[in-house]
Amino acid sequence: MRLYTLSNWRRMTEIKFRNDVSVELIKSNAIDEDVAHAAWVSNYGGDARTKDTEKMQGLIKYLYREKHMSPFEHGSFTFFIEAPIFVAREFMRHRTMAFNEWSGRYAELEPVFYVPSDSRPLKQVGKIGNYTFEEGTDDQMDLVHQQTSRSYELAWKSYENMLSCGVAKEVARNVLPVGIYTKFYATVNPRNLMHFLGLRTAPNALLEIRMVADEMEKLFAQQMPITYSAWDKES
Amino acid sequence: MRLYTLSNWRRMTEIKFRNDVSVELIKSNAIDEDVAHAAWVSNYGGDARTKDTEKMQGLIKYLYREKHMSPFEHGSFTFFIEAPIFVAREFMRHRTMAFNEWSGRYAELEPVFYVPSDSRPLKQVGKIGNYTFEEGTDDQMDLVHQQTSRSYELAWKSYENMLSCGVAKEVARNVLPVGIYTKFYATVNPRNLMHFLGLRTAPNALLEIRMVADEMEKLFAQQMPITYSAWDKES
Amino acid sequence: MRLYTLSNWRRMTEIKFRNDVSVELIKSNAIDEDVAHAAWVSNYGGDARTKDTEKMQGLIKYLYREKHMSPFEHGSFTFFIEAPIFVAREFMRHRTMAFNEWSGRYAELEPVFYVPSDSRPLKQVGKIGNYTFEEGTDDQMDLVHQQTSRSYELAWKSYENMLSCGVAKEVARNVLPVGIYTKFYATVNPRNLMHFLGLRTAPNALLEIRMVADEMEKLFAQQMPITYSAWDKES
Amino acid sequence: MRLYTLSNWRRMTEIKFRNDVSVELIKSNAIDEDVAHAAWVSNYGGDARTKDTEKMQGLIKYLYREKHMSPFEHGSFTFFIEAPIFVAREFMRHRTMAFNEWSGRYAELEPVFYVPSDSRPLKQVGKIGNYTFEEGTDDQMDLVHQQTSRSYELAWKSYENMLSCGVAKEVARNVLPVGIYTKFYATVNPRNLMHFLGLRTAPNALLEIRMVADEMEKLFAQQMPITYSAWDKES
Repeated sequence: MRLYTLSNWRRMTEIKFRNDVSVELIKSNAIDEDVAHAAWVSNYGGDARTKDTEKMQGLIKYLYREKHMSPFEHGSFTFFIEAPIFVAREFMRHRTMAFNEWSGRYAELEPVFYVPSDSRPLKQVGKIGNYTFEEGTDDQMDLVHQQTSRSYELAWKSYENMLSCGVAKEVARNVLPVGIYTKFYATVNPRNLMHFLGLRTAPNALLEIRMVADEMEKLFAQQMPITYSAWDKES
Repeated sequence: MRLYTLSNWRRMTEIKFRNDVSVELIKSNAIDEDVAHAAWVSNYGGDARTKDTEKMQGLIKYLYREKHMSPFEHGSFTFFIEAPIFVAREFMRHRTMAFNEWSGRYAELEPVFYVPSDSRPLKQVGKIGNYTFEEGTDDQMDLVHQQTSRSYELAWKSYENMLSCGVAKEVARNVLPVGIYTKFYATVNPRNLMHFLGLRTAPNALLEIRMVADEMEKLFAQQMPITYSAWDKES
Repeated sequence: MRLYTLSNWRRMTEIKFRNDVSVELIKSNAIDEDVAHAAWVSNYGGDARTKDTEKMQGLIKYLYREKHMSPFEHGSFTFFIEAPIFVAREFMRHRTMAFNEWSGRYAELEPVFYVPSDSRPLKQVGKIGNYTFEEGTDDQMDLVHQQTSRSYELAWKSYENMLSCGVAKEVARNVLPVGIYTKFYATVNPRNLMHFLGLRTAPNALLEIRMVADEMEKLFAQQMPITYSAWDKES
Repeated sequence: MRLYTLSNWRRMTEIKFRNDVSVELIKSNAIDEDVAHAAWVSNYGGDARTKDTEKMQGLIKYLYREKHMSPFEHGSFTFFIEAPIFVAREFMRHRTMAFNEWSGRYAELEPVFYVPSDSRPLKQVGKIGNYTFEEGTDDQMDLVHQQTSRSYELAWKSYENMLSCGVAKEVARNVLPVGIYTKFYATVNPRNLMHFLGLRTAPNALLEIRMVADEMEKLFAQQMPITYSAWDKES
């Protein structure tokens, strides 16, 4: 049968499984000094860039503690992130960020799928609003690996099958699972980055978005060490 | 094998295929009079609710034409929408709206999937940035129906299989396709609703989000007929 | 001299001094039930409006405590506020609100000015970032009343003088002080209202915006008593 | 009288009149290449920074024309602006920007005031919603100069008088006119900058905010020449 043959030909695209995420800092113009300068505009008027920056640490701690958050908004970080669609879905609920994501309408996606690592807790314990997660059994982990990878392969085969026969990308992709990897730019200012990290590095956050947030946190700490040390995750 | 048996038992959940979307107006407090009242605050100060509303039509047309958009922001529409995840993904890029969506972490999803109707154009013609869509052949439509429904069934079976064995919902759902239906609240003010509709009822919008936007447009027209008639989709 | 004569004629507009603010709830479609319904969409899918609302109180407290804030975004309050320009200036820094304000370009303003009441603390003690306020002496209060009312009168006279001679409103108003009253619509959802109230009812907030926020807080408490009791001002 | 003496002493602060505005680009990390890179993420997935940038001009024009605005959101401009309060008031209605402004609560302001230049149109002709502005007569211009400068001086004297007697800055400043200069940081991404400039460089915009916007437009054109040439002010 014609369809099958074409499909066979295309199936040579090799399917990849990943259990990690990628986070790269594409560019940034946000540094600790900016926070101090912006705050000094409030307090002293004029552009206070020449002011002594020695007291910057105390100032930034004070601003954060007193919830004077506007000085943390001047500048931006642009991250390039590779993560499964189910992570991107949570990520893009953050309306203070700017996004550009790989489009399943314009582009043929790539067969890269998320299969959890052996350390991924598998058992949801407790009732709604009060879940905790525990390690799964070996059998459960085997089942997840087997079911997930098999299901991904079948979905990808359907996708390629439809593309081979000239079906539009935006129709064929409907079968692709939320475990497939997507890629996107995310741009955010320091204030909203801290808010994002507070929510998404918390223990009750989805493990896979926490993996992304943890990487972002490291890059933030490198870029703005004083602000990072003033930041209170819990707040 | 135990897993298989359990899976068999659970598979009795009947899978449903849909080719439509649902849009319900849950509540709204936005009416044409509000636009006039808000504009009169700018022009006359004080609360001008007692002013003659006969000239409302002219005023609203004027405001829209001159891009005085702030009077269109006082009030909100809350819609309840059922649509596939790939539609929700585009929808939630609109950062001027408020959302609450059914959670695959907290809830077991339902086996309702999108299979395009026979009239859905299937062929993407042209190059990136300049696509048009054409009817597919009967063979292509058959292929889409067959591949899509089969792929959905297998994915759902994997999902149920994992749930049966005690795997957490948030892990099992990774195999579910973007063609599965989700449900969400979306709240928006009239100004941002018009912006959304302008983009998402346009000819180059994804057909399935257009189906949602067309329903929203009808509800908007009923609720705010004068504003609706002043609205220029193209702008 | 012609100008003087005209000015004399116009000066008959009576100048009013106020030491209070006005806050009116123009309309609202936000109630406690909405919060529960929106949360149930996340947890149970579908529109859960028929669910038992007895447990609403516990649910709302839980949502607030766990920072699940999105269910508090469906609906809006529209307030009509009369307050001095220096209050409106702080108010309109809140970017989550929609505003329409009386325009000094389009409208001739009215001679209503803010003169602090006798109980307004007048002495700023301490250094930047750590101010407290104390009662002024009787002499200081007299001085404020005298200087403020006199300065307002002279500014208003200049304004009227220029208007009388055909100078555009948008030029003449440059002399008007930030203590003159303005009027505006402010529309906001419950989540952002709580954020606003948390900042603007705090002890270190400017007294005059606190007077506005206190009135808004009362109206919020009436409209959404359960959400109000769950709200933690300090957070 | 004691107050008068103190006032005399303080009045030595020299009052300055200006008829211009200042706009400085403090920092920026937004360049044309970013727009292309972000768009390529949508179209090709992955980070396309190595792609040929020769076709950038065509791409950026296309994006703008087709209202694909998200690629214009990655990066930010931070401006430092000196302008009268009545300009800052319009400016800060733009909720897509981040601000830090000189505070009349924390700082003693400076006696710098706006007096229109001789070329400032003074006559508002037509009715509400359809104003045009025409040159004033020499008499009108004289009146504006005289009334405005005199009114500013009296207000400043009252302000200093109250400060001299220990009245809090946040109370004394109530008499200061909206024509006094303020200073602020404004941070914005390219997309929202274009939106701002479209509204605030338009012929019906307030002349004084147009003076600010015109300066910002020049800086934008230098920083992103291709995006600038693609931008359609009217849209």
